Amino acid sequence: MKKKFKKVNAAILIIGNEILSGRTQDKNIIFICNWLNSECGISVEEVRIIPDVEKMIITHVKNLSKRFNYVFTTGGIGPTHDDITSQSISKAFGTKYHFNKEAFKILENYYGKKNFNDGRKKMAMMPKGAKLVHNPSSAAPGYIFKNVISLPGVPSILNSMIENCKKYLIKGSKIYSKTINLYTVESNISFELGKIQKKYKKVVEIGSYPFFRLGKVGVSIVSRAHSTKVLKNIENELKKMIKKKNINIFNV
Amino acid sequence: MKKKFKKVNAAILIIGNEILSGRTQDKNIIFICNWLNSECGISVEEVRIIPDVEKMIITHVKNLSKRFNYVFTTGGIGPTHDDITSQSISKAFGTKYHFNKEAFKILENYYGKKNFNDGRKKMAMMPKGAKLVHNPSSAAPGYIFKNVISLPGVPSILNSMIENCKKYLIKGSKIYSKTINLYTVESNISFELGKIQKKYKKVVEIGSYPFFRLGKVGVSIVSRAHSTKVLKNIENELKKMIKKKNINIFNV
Repeated sequence: MKKKFKKVNAAILIIGNEILSGRTQDKNIIFICNWLNSECGISVEEVRIIPDVEKMIITHVKNLSKRFNYVFTTGGIGPTHDDITSQSISKAFGTKYHFNKEAFKILENYYGKKNFNDGRKKMAMMPKGAKLVHNPSSAAPGYIFKNVISLPGVPSILNSMIENCKKYLIKGSKIYSKTINLYTVESNISFELGKIQKKYKKVVEIGSYPFFRLGKVGVSIVSRAHSTKVLKNIENELKKMIKKKNINIFNV
Repeated sequence: MKKKFKKVNAAILIIGNEILSGRTQDKNIIFICNWLNSECGISVEEVRIIPDVEKMIITHVKNLSKRFNYVFTTGGIGPTHDDITSQSISKAFGTKYHFNKEAFKILENYYGKKNFNDGRKKMAMMPKGAKLVHNPSSAAPGYIFKNVISLPGVPSILNSMIENCKKYLIKGSKIYSKTINLYTVESNISFELGKIQKKYKKVVEIGSYPFFRLGKVGVSIVSRAHSTKVLKNIENELKKMIKKKNINIFNV
């Protein structure tokens, strides 16, 4: 009997001119991808990076929200003029953009009534019906609205909040991966590798990535599958190829 | 008389399961964004990261190619089964996918006739009419076809090739930027910053980015404009705000 695996997918929408201008190295994509994969069995299948422009945010939120189980947005939920993610998400879904009472209280407590100015209040504005993702670093919460999870852009704050997303997510079957590093070049094994991928095309995804390490060139063969048994079969097939071709394995 | 600035834009399409799985930290986005900005006056206005799936590549190449002056793709032009960028671009434009004679010769010379196997030959397959982007690191060329520039995914190789793209690109007016780092929090200056952005909304883009450095929190105010005169005006306005609010500047 064939085992059924539950596939859940997600997209990430990075909202921020600072990434597109080349000023800032994004660190949120790899973090969210890893976390979703390892903690939730959710595959990220598309990422988009767009500017802080309302029309763009609306268009991309709508598109991704329809096509994926979840959409994670990062950036644009702070207090400044360029933080327009929440109002744009509200517009994308034709939902009221209003003060979330719980978020308002959290922020009022955090800053104190006297210092709770308009910029700070703005961080409690969300689409009506949003549920909060609590923020242990700097109080201002993220939220989930429909299938869109909105998180801040600052990596250290985002990282501290990610576990609080878990309760809102349906989990998929875990994705396992196995990497073998070889001292060879891709073009030496491309034919055999293609044959193995073809044979197992429905159950495994084999990637081939060149590397340069300690002055030597090599290739990392990464196999990813929902089943550890399938991964073991692939490993055996790869080992046959390695032996036949007389290639050395690089143990990291 | 108002000076006219020439705006040229681009999108980046990162093709690679290794980024989406969280295995690899992308380094090409920031590199290409910076290079296009500083060397060519070209603004990157959208980035997408997608899997090695033909249908996806075709859809996204078509979409981005219509909407932007240039599209830079990275990844998927090597010798293995998961390298399907060139055949997908050919299909996207309904163009023949064939051996580029010049690329074939370069690769044959590089590997020697005896070692020029099918995987290596595959790297000479391109959309008919493609013009080469030479590769000083590992011979296998990238190319430009219509407004799509295809480069490899390995950052060190991509970096070594980028200058060879220049001759194919129309340049835009240079984009200047000015950063001021302040010891404050965003919500302390959001109102004033919003007012300045509003006043200059057509000529400058002001971004506000929190940072944490040496145990202190701060905000980087980044202004970007085609005109240095406009940037100087913005700087003066910001300095007035800083003085009024009694904020310290952080000199890096």
